[in-house]
Amino acid sequence: MNAPTSLAHVRPEIAPRPVPEALIAALQARFGAQCSTAMAVREQHGRDESSYTEVPPPAAVVFAEGTQDVADALKLASQHEVPVIPFGAGSSLEGHLLAVQGGISIDVSRMNRVLSVNADDLTVTVQPGVTRKQLNEEIKSTGLFFPIDPGADASIGGMTATRASGTNAVRYGTMRENVLALEVVTASGEVVRTGTRAKKSSAGYDLTRLFVGSEGTLGVVTEVTLRIYPLPEAVSAAICSFPSIEAAVRTTIETIQLGVPIARVELIDVNTVRMVNAYSKLSLREEPMLLMEFHGSPAGVKEQAETVQEIASGHGGNAFEWASTPEERTRLWTARHNSFFAAIASRPGCRAISTDTCVPISRLADCLLDSVAEVDASGIPYFLVGHVGDGNFHFGYLIDPDDPAEREKAEQLNHALVARAIALEGTCTGEHGVGLHKMGFLVDEAGAGAIDLMRTIKRALDPKNIMNPGKIFSLG
Amino acid sequence: MNAPTSLAHVRPEIAPRPVPEALIAALQARFGAQCSTAMAVREQHGRDESSYTEVPPPAAVVFAEGTQDVADALKLASQHEVPVIPFGAGSSLEGHLLAVQGGISIDVSRMNRVLSVNADDLTVTVQPGVTRKQLNEEIKSTGLFFPIDPGADASIGGMTATRASGTNAVRYGTMRENVLALEVVTASGEVVRTGTRAKKSSAGYDLTRLFVGSEGTLGVVTEVTLRIYPLPEAVSAAICSFPSIEAAVRTTIETIQLGVPIARVELIDVNTVRMVNAYSKLSLREEPMLLMEFHGSPAGVKEQAETVQEIASGHGGNAFEWASTPEERTRLWTARHNSFFAAIASRPGCRAISTDTCVPISRLADCLLDSVAEVDASGIPYFLVGHVGDGNFHFGYLIDPDDPAEREKAEQLNHALVARAIALEGTCTGEHGVGLHKMGFLVDEAGAGAIDLMRTIKRALDPKNIMNPGKIFSLG
Repeated sequence: MNAPTSLAHVRPEIAPRPVPEALIAALQARFGAQCSTAMAVREQHGRDESSYTEVPPPAAVVFAEGTQDVADALKLASQHEVPVIPFGAGSSLEGHLLAVQGGISIDVSRMNRVLSVNADDLTVTVQPGVTRKQLNEEIKSTGLFFPIDPGADASIGGMTATRASGTNAVRYGTMRENVLALEVVTASGEVVRTGTRAKKSSAGYDLTRLFVGSEGTLGVVTEVTLRIYPLPEAVSAAICSFPSIEAAVRTTIETIQLGVPIARVELIDVNTVRMVNAYSKLSLREEPMLLMEFHGSPAGVKEQAETVQEIASGHGGNAFEWASTPEERTRLWTARHNSFFAAIASRPGCRAISTDTCVPISRLADCLLDSVAEVDASGIPYFLVGHVGDGNFHFGYLIDPDDPAEREKAEQLNHALVARAIALEGTCTGEHGVGLHKMGFLVDEAGAGAIDLMRTIKRALDPKNIMNPGKIFSLG
Repeated sequence: MNAPTSLAHVRPEIAPRPVPEALIAALQARFGAQCSTAMAVREQHGRDESSYTEVPPPAAVVFAEGTQDVADALKLASQHEVPVIPFGAGSSLEGHLLAVQGGISIDVSRMNRVLSVNADDLTVTVQPGVTRKQLNEEIKSTGLFFPIDPGADASIGGMTATRASGTNAVRYGTMRENVLALEVVTASGEVVRTGTRAKKSSAGYDLTRLFVGSEGTLGVVTEVTLRIYPLPEAVSAAICSFPSIEAAVRTTIETIQLGVPIARVELIDVNTVRMVNAYSKLSLREEPMLLMEFHGSPAGVKEQAETVQEIASGHGGNAFEWASTPEERTRLWTARHNSFFAAIASRPGCRAISTDTCVPISRLADCLLDSVAEVDASGIPYFLVGHVGDGNFHFGYLIDPDDPAEREKAEQLNHALVARAIALEGTCTGEHGVGLHKMGFLVDEAGAGAIDLMRTIKRALDPKNIMNPGKIFSLG
C-alpha cells in the first residue's frame, strides 16, 4: 500500500467568490417567486448525501421551470462571473452539489415532464427533473421500462451528470450507453442540442458523451433522450450461498464469459449477511451470497438459470433459492434491499462512508479479499455489496461522525482500496462520480496528461469557470 | 425537398500550407528509412476510398513502429506547424485521409501487434494498425471474437477514429460502446491514456468517447482497449422475402421492440436483389429481402428464429430459408456479401457514391420509400442495403465518373436524402464519419451551437490546427 498521497483532497478547498447584490436583484426581478434566498432553501441546496457539513450554502436558489429559465439564469450568472450549481434530487454522494466557491443553485426539479415516448424506437425524451421512478411509472402502460437503477430515486439530469448505473448495468449498460441525445445550456447561456434520436451516429465529436459524467461543470442538462427497453416477458430471481467470496466471483466471471445475459448479479459478503439477518429477522446462511436476476422469454430465463446453477455448483454454491413471481422476488432480494439500512442499524448513530471502485472482473476477487482483510484488521465496522458482474462494489465504512480519528482511518482504508483498484487496472469510481471527494483519486487514476486534457476542455467551454467550479479536478 | 444548401461543401477546399524542407530533413534524420518522400508512397497515402481525386498528396510519409515514433513525428510537425494525417488501412470513405491542407502522413499500419488478451475480462488491447480480421484470427483460439464489422478489413485505429459499426451493431453496439480505453498522442506530442480496463467508470470527462469518432483531428490513437465477446454457442441465419420495404421494416421494428436479441438484420431492396441474381446467377425472389442472423444457445437461437418467423408471417414474409452450418450461412448471405460487386458490375466503369444516413427505426420506412421514389425518378442506377435494425442504410448511386452532371445529380439525391433523414430526427452519417464530404451536412444536422462547441474543443486541444485539419467542420 502506497502512502495516502491523496488525502489532502478529501477536505474540500472552500473559497467562496463574491455574489454581487446586483445579481441577486436581477435574479429576483427576472424570476420573482421562482428565486429564493431563504436560508432553509439555500441550506437544502447546499448539501447532498455526502458527509460534508462545513461548506456554506449557495447565495440563492432559482427554481427553473423551463430551458429558457436556465438560460436566463446562466446568462446573468455569467455576466457577474458567479458560480452556478445545477440541482436535481440532491442524492449525489461525493459533494457534487456543495457551493465550495459560492454562487447560486439552479434547481431543475420542477422541470419534471416526460416530453415524448417513442415506443417504436424505444426512446423517451424527458426534462432533467424527472426521477427514474417517475419515468418508469409514466411509461408503464407502454410495456417498456428504463433500467438504470442507482438505488436512490435520482433525477435523470443528475444521473446523466454523474454517469450513473447500478444493479442492471451488467445487462443494460450505464447512462453512457443509454443517453442518446441532450439539450444543454452552456456556460454562456446558449441552448445547444447534442446527438439525435438515431441509435448510432458518426457525425462529429461525441458531445453527448462529453456532457454525460461532466457533473455540471460544462453546462446544465435541460433535456435528455434515453433508450428504453421492452419489459421482459419473464423474470426469474435466485439467491445462492458460497463458501468464499472467491467462489462467488469465479461463478460470476464464468457466467459473463459464457455470454449468459444475466440482468443482475449482486454480491453480499458474509459480514453484511449477518447484519441483514439481525435487522430483518432472517436466517440466511452466513456465507457470501450472490443475488441474481434473469430477464427473457420463459424458456430463455429457465436456460440461463440452469446454466448459472451448474456453474455455481462447480464452485461449491449451495442453498439455491428461486423465485418467479414479483412477491417472491422481492422477498429473496430483501437482503440486498435492506443491506444499507441493516448496516446503519448495526451501529446506532453511525454514518457510512461509501466507496464505489470498479475493476476488471478477473481482478475482483484479489481486490476484495485484500480489502476485506485490511478493513477487518482496522476494526472499523463495514458492509460490502457489489455489482460484481461489472466488477463494481461498495464498501460502506460505518464511522462515528464525531470521531475524527475514525473518519481519518476510514478515509485511509478508502484510499488504500482505490490505490489497489487502480493498480489492478480499475477506476476510483464506477458510478458515483468524482465530486469533491475523489479529486485526488482521479489524479492518481487518470494521470497528469489526461487531467490536463480535461482542464483544457473545461477552460475552453467555461472560460469564466462558473459551472460547478472546484469539482472533478482543480484548475491548478 | 429543400434547396441543396450544402453542396458547396462537397468539393473540398484545398489550401496546402507550406511544408518546410527543415521538417523533411528532421524527419529523415529521426526516422531514416521509416520516412518516405517517394511519390508512389505519398500518393497511396493521399487518397482513401472516396471519389476525390484532385487533392495533392502529403509531402512525406512516416511509418511509425511504436508510440514514441508517433510522438516524435508529432513534436516535429508541431514545431513547424505542419498538418499531420494519421493513416491506418486507407479504407475510409469520405475523404478523411486527404491532405487538403498539405502536411505529412503518419502511417500506423506497422503498429500491428495484439498487445494483450484478457479472456476473463473479455478485453483485448491492440495497436492501431491491427485490422479487424487479423484481430479475430489472433484471438480465435480463445473462443472469443470482436464483432464490429464495417465491411472493409479496416484498422482498429481507423475504426476508432470514425466510430465505425456495421452489420453486428444491432446486437453488439458500435465502436462507441466497445472501446474501453485508449492511448493517444496529442497534437503537442504528449502521450496520454484515457479510460481503464474497468467495464464502467464515472471518473471525470469521457475522453475516450471524445477521441472515438474524432477522425484524427484531436490526436493519433496509438493503443486501443476493446471489449470482446464469447463466440455464440449456436448461430442461425435466415433470409425472407417481403411484398414491400414497409413490410420488411415493420417486421424489423417488431423484432426489436419485442426484445429479440437479433445479431444481424439486413435489408436488400428489390432492385439490388435483381442485380445480385444477375451477378451471382441466382434466382432469388425479386422482392425486398431481409437477411437475419441469430446468436445464442441452441434453444435460444431456435426460439428467436421462431419469434421472428411469426412476426414476418404477419407482414406477408415468405420464402423463408434457414441455415445453421457456416457453409449454408455463407450461401444464404451471398446476396448481401455480393451486393456491392453486383451493383458495380451492373454498370461497367461506374463508381458508387455511398450514403449512410441513419434514422429512428419508426421513421425508416418513410425515409426509404421517399428516397427510393426520388432516385427512381432521377434515372440514376443505384443499390440499397441497410442495417435496418439500427435504422441505418446505404444507397449507392452508380455514376459515370466522367459525367459531371451525373455526379451532381447523385450529390443532390444524397443531399435530399440527408435532409429527409435529419428532418426525421436522424443523422447524416451512421457509421462512415464526416470527413470532407459531409461537412455541410453536419452543419445542417448539429446546428451552429453544437458545431461551435466542437470548434472550441478543437481549438483548445490543437491550437496550431495541425491534426488532420479541414475535416469534420471548418474552423470558420
